Amino acid sequence: MPKVKYRAHAHSENKTKTVVKIKNFNIIVDEPKIFGGTNEGPNPLEILLAAFAGCLNIVGHKVAKDMGFSLNSIKIDIEGDIDPSKFMGLKTRKRAGYTEIRVKITPDTITTVDPETLAKWVEEIEERCPVSDVLSNGTKTKIEVV
Amino acid sequence: MPKVKYRAHAHSENKTKTVVKIKNFNIIVDEPKIFGGTNEGPNPLEILLAAFAGCLNIVGHKVAKDMGFSLNSIKIDIEGDIDPSKFMGLKTRKRAGYTEIRVKITPDTITTVDPETLAKWVEEIEERCPVSDVLSNGTKTKIEVV
Repeated sequence: MPKVKYRAHAHSENKTKTVVKIKNFNIIVDEPKIFGGTNEGPNPLEILLAAFAGCLNIVGHKVAKDMGFSLNSIKIDIEGDIDPSKFMGLKTRKRAGYTEIRVKITPDTITTVDPETLAKWVEEIEERCPVSDVLSNGTKTKIEVV
Repeated sequence: MPKVKYRAHAHSENKTKTVVKIKNFNIIVDEPKIFGGTNEGPNPLEILLAAFAGCLNIVGHKVAKDMGFSLNSIKIDIEGDIDPSKFMGLKTRKRAGYTEIRVKITPDTITTVDPETLAKWVEEIEERCPVSDVLSNGTKTKIEVV
């Protein structure tokens, strides 16, 4: 299949607020006031969870279709743990990013689906979801100052 | 420092559109019509880039301050490569997620900052940015069907 490139163009409106332009959409990323922000959007780590949730929904529907069952809807609850020490600039061996992300998926299926099939469904979602793959295996990043 | 938990609660409105509730914000994730979506928001992989851009902005300002220089603003352009084969369900050894993400950061500094300092600035951003750390090192995910 042909490769796809995705792009985002962002600028800071202040030290915490970022306006990200993607196609004809604007996503606002910001920190809450208690962390010195202007509270106009979720913070980057929350936006990352939104990306994961959106991916699990799309892939969840696709895998269900491929497995031969249909969904009315999916509910997804996600939670992740962060230690802010490294971000804050403290000397620490702790990592800056999420140490763990936990997801609860609640599928509303049109017909009854047995638990074994749902377990297989989740397994295949994890394999085929691009965001899940990035979280599990990482991705090489190259940052250049212009 | 005390650990922080971030949370997102999402539901599908259709097989591609996800409404993600984070605090009092709603993020809409969707696919464009050419990929069978309803085109009401960026797709999950684009939202992931938005998370990265937002993080680079916040950490970029923080690291600059810690290093003793000030920024008027930062511009961030991000691009990532995807092979959709695995997501589509084809038998392949290719990975589902981004194979590479490239970032161009354009800092607008208040006073002139030499290139060596800017190189050190980017290096420290990469170390301290939580989203950068997740991309570089991955994160354990646990998915449970409810």
